[in-house]
Amino acid sequence: MIRTLNASDPDFDELLADLLSMPDAGPGHISQIVADIIADVRDRGDAALLELSNKFDRLGAEQTGDLEVSAAKMRQAAERVDPLVIDALQTSVARVRKYHLEQMKSLGGLVDWSFEDETGNKLGQLVRPIERVGVYVPGGKASYPSSVVMTVVPAKVAGVGEVILMVPASDGRLSDSVQAAALFCGVDRMFKIGGAQAVAAMAYGTALVPRVDKIVGPGNIYVATAKAQVFGQVGIDMIAGPSEIVIVADGSANPEWLVMDMFAQAEHDELAQSILISTDQSLLTDVARLIDEMKPGMARAGIINESIANRGALIRVPSLPDAATVVNRIAPEHLQLVISGAEEFIDYIRHAGAIFVGSHSAEVVGDYTAGPSHVLPTGGTARFASPLGVYDFQVRSSLIQCSARGAIDLSRTAAILAREEGLEAHARSAEFRVQG
Amino acid sequence: MIRTLNASDPDFDELLADLLSMPDAGPGHISQIVADIIADVRDRGDAALLELSNKFDRLGAEQTGDLEVSAAKMRQAAERVDPLVIDALQTSVARVRKYHLEQMKSLGGLVDWSFEDETGNKLGQLVRPIERVGVYVPGGKASYPSSVVMTVVPAKVAGVGEVILMVPASDGRLSDSVQAAALFCGVDRMFKIGGAQAVAAMAYGTALVPRVDKIVGPGNIYVATAKAQVFGQVGIDMIAGPSEIVIVADGSANPEWLVMDMFAQAEHDELAQSILISTDQSLLTDVARLIDEMKPGMARAGIINESIANRGALIRVPSLPDAATVVNRIAPEHLQLVISGAEEFIDYIRHAGAIFVGSHSAEVVGDYTAGPSHVLPTGGTARFASPLGVYDFQVRSSLIQCSARGAIDLSRTAAILAREEGLEAHARSAEFRVQG
Repeated sequence: MIRTLNASDPDFDELLADLLSMPDAGPGHISQIVADIIADVRDRGDAALLELSNKFDRLGAEQTGDLEVSAAKMRQAAERVDPLVIDALQTSVARVRKYHLEQMKSLGGLVDWSFEDETGNKLGQLVRPIERVGVYVPGGKASYPSSVVMTVVPAKVAGVGEVILMVPASDGRLSDSVQAAALFCGVDRMFKIGGAQAVAAMAYGTALVPRVDKIVGPGNIYVATAKAQVFGQVGIDMIAGPSEIVIVADGSANPEWLVMDMFAQAEHDELAQSILISTDQSLLTDVARLIDEMKPGMARAGIINESIANRGALIRVPSLPDAATVVNRIAPEHLQLVISGAEEFIDYIRHAGAIFVGSHSAEVVGDYTAGPSHVLPTGGTARFASPLGVYDFQVRSSLIQCSARGAIDLSRTAAILAREEGLEAHARSAEFRVQG
Repeated sequence: MIRTLNASDPDFDELLADLLSMPDAGPGHISQIVADIIADVRDRGDAALLELSNKFDRLGAEQTGDLEVSAAKMRQAAERVDPLVIDALQTSVARVRKYHLEQMKSLGGLVDWSFEDETGNKLGQLVRPIERVGVYVPGGKASYPSSVVMTVVPAKVAGVGEVILMVPASDGRLSDSVQAAALFCGVDRMFKIGGAQAVAAMAYGTALVPRVDKIVGPGNIYVATAKAQVFGQVGIDMIAGPSEIVIVADGSANPEWLVMDMFAQAEHDELAQSILISTDQSLLTDVARLIDEMKPGMARAGIINESIANRGALIRVPSLPDAATVVNRIAPEHLQLVISGAEEFIDYIRHAGAIFVGSHSAEVVGDYTAGPSHVLPTGGTARFASPLGVYDFQVRSSLIQCSARGAIDLSRTAAILAREEGLEAHARSAEFRVQG
């Protein structure tokens, strides 16, 4: 049975906080395992990579070179993929590329900029693509070619020089469609390495794996912990948690569609979260009934059942503005608006990773084909974090070029503030420029 | 004596790596202290804040309210500040504001953007300021009004709704000029709280301190460790290390100026790093001599001496392109170009937090008055991190609005990829939209 909440209840705030709270992952234990793996890869390089990959992924690799996937192998793999899937992948790549080109334009093209002040000082910024980026894409039992597209394409559009892809290959098996996606996206080098050892290799470099400047992409708790531990040595995008969706719906919504949208989220894993908010009690009642009716027919009914039972909820609200208040409290990764007047409702939304507007906009098109990256801020981090985008692959340098005349005023004022802060050498360095 | 290196030596790469390596801070110990403080503030809220502030800062506060600095107090403090300093602060605020307004323009004004594809699907992004930002400014024995300006002004220009300022007040004393800076920058609430407890209060909120969405600003090892630990619960800007400067100079440079620029960096603390690179051996010889001559006269000669001796270096290179190679290896926080043809040399630079072009552009004007924020990526992180800017205070949401017609193609393709990934509910959620 799915949990039901009523936003008018006096204890709603507490119940909502409880709904959103995550079971403690006991990071102490995992943290030490990950730290040991990172230290091992730093110390022993490729030998450690080979050993750890054979141990954790049963890779059966005999030498370091076996860890890399050549372009020829990618092409061979692509030839084995169903043409319908190839076509879908290429459509996805084209749409994601188009979207990120538009995003680039919205940022003014990310070119250097500067202005000159009244005394001839030139001030601005250089904007450069990050040189080398590492992408982690989960593997194991499932395979996620879409995650290759959603991370590599924005990096390439931003102008990143070299993109390294890491995918674990359980029992040595690597999905053909993942390799095809890597080929279509223009991945520069691909490795069959997973887990914390993949993150360590990219952060510090080995003889085989080049050191990258930033690591992006989703991963399990070991990958997420490793990313957190190497943060500072390299840049990282975010620490992703389980996926969530919040749907705001009214009587105009088709309850069967809503249930399948909730199941789509729930089937990811047991901790995924699906929440439906409505002013319409009869809709909520229908959805509750349909969840029970439709669940047994699903391929991943077990996972869906656990996710819906432990993390799902139906929330009754008195009005749409109240729905917005709840949405903003949650700051969801995905927000689906299945209400008449959905477009106007957007104005109430302050925090959401991606907003799907109207009944035709299923969250799943966002996962695959719409255009924006499906790498989105989870667990309420939409309050401060953005979807993965070209801006994540750019780096800026401030530019300060004083004129002989302009330097006099700037330096005089700087000297006054430096003395106020007790920094004598600062003041004297500035004063040299006042005297010219 | 300052270390000297020659880029032509066979072991140069190793010696450079050694120069750049930081002594291990033994974070294990500090990490536990910080974790305990954060847990205490989460558990006991204001009572813990009061107790910890009285313990670590000898604040002598009797009640929670004593931890806040009212606007009236800020105004009284500003009246006690030397008018020359007030004037300098206001100049600084105006210039930093102007620069960040230009930065905002360079980003296309950070407005929502969207485009419509050929089948009527609307795709784009909402761009919003982060709602509430917490700024940490170090205090203790020194006071840094400039750090208030360099963090709060970009946030305000970006449109942040509420800016909270945390400054430790050792023995209850708070610098007047810091309070004046807070007033001029439009800080919304200011607290006399420092260390890990300040970070914890902003990350989780207490009865007195509102929870923020992102924490920015420099701090000591306790503050940096606390920021790393609350990352995910809130956004953070970066984990700052000791400050550094790399100067590239030729025979046209005034060696006295260079020495004072190096001292200005070195006087920050013993771990600060000052490196001079030149093709000109006689310049390097002059600088080495002047360092010894000028040092004894400096107010902070002790700190300068340790920083220069342990972390400083003079590096001889065969040519300017070689200088660029060394600079890019270091990816310095500050880069000062004191060479003829400095402007052309910029093209060789791939990684630097801020670039000061020409002999009139002292790094210290960047600390106070030029306009860009002085919060810059340290320790080689300029490879992937940017100066603090308006973009750090903005958050984006993807927007996906499918037309009835457009949804058919997108959903059909999404369903194919979902099946390839073994996600049946995803496929069926998409297929509902194909059928319409």
